[in-house]
Amino acid sequence: MRSFIVVGNLATTTPDFSLEDIPGTSGRLDILCRCINSAFVLSHGIRKDVQVFLVLRGGSAPKTVHLRGGELRHLNPDERTTAALLKKALALEADGEWRRATPGIFVRAGDLADLQVWGEGTTYYLREDGIDHRDAITAADGTFVLGDHIGLSAEDEAFLEGLDAKIVSVGPKSLHADHCIVLVNNELDRIEATVQEGSSRDEAVR
Amino acid sequence: MRSFIVVGNLATTTPDFSLEDIPGTSGRLDILCRCINSAFVLSHGIRKDVQVFLVLRGGSAPKTVHLRGGELRHLNPDERTTAALLKKALALEADGEWRRATPGIFVRAGDLADLQVWGEGTTYYLREDGIDHRDAITAADGTFVLGDHIGLSAEDEAFLEGLDAKIVSVGPKSLHADHCIVLVNNELDRIEATVQEGSSRDEAVR
Repeated sequence: MRSFIVVGNLATTTPDFSLEDIPGTSGRLDILCRCINSAFVLSHGIRKDVQVFLVLRGGSAPKTVHLRGGELRHLNPDERTTAALLKKALALEADGEWRRATPGIFVRAGDLADLQVWGEGTTYYLREDGIDHRDAITAADGTFVLGDHIGLSAEDEAFLEGLDAKIVSVGPKSLHADHCIVLVNNELDRIEATVQEGSSRDEAVR
Repeated sequence: MRSFIVVGNLATTTPDFSLEDIPGTSGRLDILCRCINSAFVLSHGIRKDVQVFLVLRGGSAPKTVHLRGGELRHLNPDERTTAALLKKALALEADGEWRRATPGIFVRAGDLADLQVWGEGTTYYLREDGIDHRDAITAADGTFVLGDHIGLSAEDEAFLEGLDAKIVSVGPKSLHADHCIVLVNNELDRIEATVQEGSSRDEAVR
């Protein structure tokens, strides 16, 4: 499983934003919509082995939205329909339990440290000064943590350090989170293809 | 200079589409808006060494929109404001001359074969069955041709073959054009960084 966790520092936790002006009314939920596209969208379908957690901190208390590729329905590649799906999720009451908004989309109260994905495979923290992800990523899955335009706080970084997260960079230029996810997915696809090729070769030899 | 040419087979050539439903009313101009984002947008600015040509074929006669990174203003990363810029460009009368709609955005009548970028560096055609772009791209610039969700026609392919275009693929999975552009830009960034590193080393030795 590939897990992408994106922190939206100012991202709204309510459905009270306008689909006519997503960047201006939602605390930059547009960034998170593009991350969802990058994480899931293939030319002819949805990546089923991906899950995304959006940590929304732009309200009185943080909320987390969870999208699961295996169950996801109604996801289109454009920003507006993705934002409309998030609007539905944010309209639900959120407490400590996951509640399903639409197929594959769930919401609950909680922040980064409350997620339960930690410890399943390697955790990577995407940051400009990290080591090259092409060298650092060696398995076709993992948990990848990214910040929005503001980045992660010192507390977040300390938390990730405690998890022994590898700090990785996607290249020489500083990129938006959605572009980073495209690059990570591609690297994982390449590793997966090499592993599969190896297994078929082993199979043929037997 | 990096040039990205994206063919929108059904993309509207008029401004008569709705910003409230870009995918449904514009012949999938949303795909081209995302390509513009991938081509130009960095974390803290716009790539100035990039130009994009959108070939729009969803009207009575094809139009081309040209975006130049060095002059581009008012470009935000979200789809809607990019679509609004294209709407302004498509409202201009289009004949054989380039007309400026907003800073860095130009429009004229014409199709793929009418572009004048051919011959400036290597031309690459992005197609799933091509050779790996990580092996194929050797210089930090070039002209990259991509299709939308429909792809390129047999005539387009014959035209590109006549230009001796290299057919390249970005990886094992079939991806949308905007994701391909992110991957190509990253590869070019890496080559550029290696070249610069080499020059500074040479400089230090002298």
